[in-house]
Amino acid sequence: CKLHKICVLPGDGIGPEIMTVAKKALSLAGQKEGEEFQYTDCLIGGAAIDATGKPLPDETLATAKASDAVLLAAIGGYKWDTLPSAQRPERGLLAIRAGLNAFANLRPAIVPRQLADSSPLKRELVEGVDILIVRELVGGIYFGQPRGFGTNDKGERIGYNTDVYSEPEVERIARVAFEAARKRGKRLCSVEKSNVLEVSQLWKEVVIRVGKDYPDVELSHMYIDNAAMQLLRNPKYFDVIVTGNIFGDILSDEASMLAGSLGLLPSASISGAGPGIYEPVHGSAPDIAGQDKANPLAMVLSAAMMCRYDLAIPKVAERLEKAVDAVLDAGLRTGDIYKQGTPNTKLVKCSEMGEALFAHI
Amino acid sequence: CKLHKICVLPGDGIGPEIMTVAKKALSLAGQKEGEEFQYTDCLIGGAAIDATGKPLPDETLATAKASDAVLLAAIGGYKWDTLPSAQRPERGLLAIRAGLNAFANLRPAIVPRQLADSSPLKRELVEGVDILIVRELVGGIYFGQPRGFGTNDKGERIGYNTDVYSEPEVERIARVAFEAARKRGKRLCSVEKSNVLEVSQLWKEVVIRVGKDYPDVELSHMYIDNAAMQLLRNPKYFDVIVTGNIFGDILSDEASMLAGSLGLLPSASISGAGPGIYEPVHGSAPDIAGQDKANPLAMVLSAAMMCRYDLAIPKVAERLEKAVDAVLDAGLRTGDIYKQGTPNTKLVKCSEMGEALFAHI
Ligand SMILES: CC(C)[C@H](C(=O)O)[C@@H](O)C(=O)O
Ligand SMILES: CC(C)[C@H](C(=O)O)[C@@H](O)C(=O)O
Repeated sequence: CKLHKICVLPGDGIGPEIMTVAKKALSLAGQKEGEEFQYTDCLIGGAAIDATGKPLPDETLATAKASDAVLLAAIGGYKWDTLPSAQRPERGLLAIRAGLNAFANLRPAIVPRQLADSSPLKRELVEGVDILIVRELVGGIYFGQPRGFGTNDKGERIGYNTDVYSEPEVERIARVAFEAARKRGKRLCSVEKSNVLEVSQLWKEVVIRVGKDYPDVELSHMYIDNAAMQLLRNPKYFDVIVTGNIFGDILSDEASMLAGSLGLLPSASISGAGPGIYEPVHGSAPDIAGQDKANPLAMVLSAAMMCRYDLAIPKVAERLEKAVDAVLDAGLRTGDIYKQGTPNTKLVKCSEMGEALFAHI
Repeated sequence: CKLHKICVLPGDGIGPEIMTVAKKALSLAGQKEGEEFQYTDCLIGGAAIDATGKPLPDETLATAKASDAVLLAAIGGYKWDTLPSAQRPERGLLAIRAGLNAFANLRPAIVPRQLADSSPLKRELVEGVDILIVRELVGGIYFGQPRGFGTNDKGERIGYNTDVYSEPEVERIARVAFEAARKRGKRLCSVEKSNVLEVSQLWKEVVIRVGKDYPDVELSHMYIDNAAMQLLRNPKYFDVIVTGNIFGDILSDEASMLAGSLGLLPSASISGAGPGIYEPVHGSAPDIAGQDKANPLAMVLSAAMMCRYDLAIPKVAERLEKAVDAVLDAGLRTGDIYKQGTPNTKLVKCSEMGEALFAHI
């Protein structure tokens, strides 16, 4: 029996509720496979600001670094929305990504069979969609220097940021994407805006070069504006998408709507060395926090991704994924994925969904 | 009878075909209302590169500046795709936008009644959608300095661009958007990424300040990633959207897919002083160029926008718009909007669509 040290960041809003379910589900699934988890809860986001004044206390980062992996629920809420931006909960998220060098953000956009009808897109377009977006997460315009406020040569006040990538930064994310594509449909689409931006021209050049090492993967290139269209026109065209930080932010959120709901979408942010961060794509939903209404499934699926990628215990991942599939098949739906009038479905609370999951595991 | 001087830029691919239809439709509609048009054809894009070596010859810009308005069809094609990016057709587009200071790009995303079924989104979500995207067009990361290639402090090669806005730049685009909202649904949504970027924080601050002058317009703010989602989740939420250059590029292309086809979407790029540029949202479609298969309707609707905005002859605009409505009602469809099996529709060529339009005008 192996002990896996997990840094647990429940964060804000519905975070603690869904984390409770995920921890228990993970432990149960681990038991069946002879794997044990040791959880260390730490503060991040608004909860950390309230307790320590900082969105990412040093102690949290230190614990995260000393762990095998990080499970993060969600951060932010109305309460902290009026703070100056440098002190807001989101900064904790950016800081832990950078602190762990979690440069590769993997976001699957999968339309679960049981929910294909809740997509805003027509069923025939989204049924069977299975896209993996690989977003660069610790570079680009999110972190580029110089940045700030200043004055231009006309004496007018300006705000500015720098979108910048270096060759090694593009190379390492490209390799993650090619490797992922190799294990899937063997098609990679690199998304940039090289008809306008130099940073994108470098991106494209390096991706093409790295691609030489992956002759078995079919590489294509698409401008970001066109990609935003094609995701709607023909989402099944895509297998793996690789793109920079800001384009990935936009595209992965757009792609997540193909599924109709964020309630089932996990994500992994990994460095290749050291612990990765596993978190649902959805936010902290402060409007329903503490009401036992949240959907814990994306959190549970994030734990499954953690088992697969960082912990290399795919059997535990499978148990979790199968349990999620089973509760959906059984018709259980939390508020976010419940659609009145759909036969054989039942509206349940977060804790009820949890109990059903535990039973299936 | 007034004479309107129009700088005509047929450009590449299907450009010349659709421009022929638009010019004739415009002249006919003008005749009925006692307005006359004088067309001066100039080179831009690939056609200009072939003839002069430059994507925007000085003569074209000079003629454009001396005109009342510019009608542009489409630029680009496979032939020029391998040129170094600084010499590609797109550069002509960026250069004429900057040269005319056409800072406000207005892109309506309307789902035409007759085509609601061709949207990838479910009919109930898109029926009645009527969004106006106001995109800043001559600033931001498209034009920000410094930009280029270089070396970072680790000696690695980098590519970089600067996303920058000044207060006056944001203020003028915000005013265009508030004015537009005032004439429509009185709701304006400003889209940025102020939780991460300083350039967005300045953007938001200035938009809020300008908003004080428009107490009758309801102002909201949305992060770009969320906007990319909400456009799919609930497109009817939006009335007018105002955003920066790159976010507007992405969002307007995404929004254009709500209509299912680009074939009917016009755009205006205006400076408030001097001639604006009117062009369809679609591209030059080199694959069907010269085959009389193109859809001329977006080009005709762009001419209508020109009549409304720059030339202040709304009656001519109405005649054009009514003719487009009529040919769609009559079931005429070019290949891009034709769906086999739809009752009472007929596949027609570009020239046939033109003849039908002329008859209706
Ligand atoms: C909260 C925000 C800073 C973050 C981002 O932009 O990266 C979020 O949108 C995400 O995608 O995880
Ligand atoms: C061709 C390209 C440079 C252009 C842009 O990015 O502005 C196009 O996508 C557009 O939106 O008009």
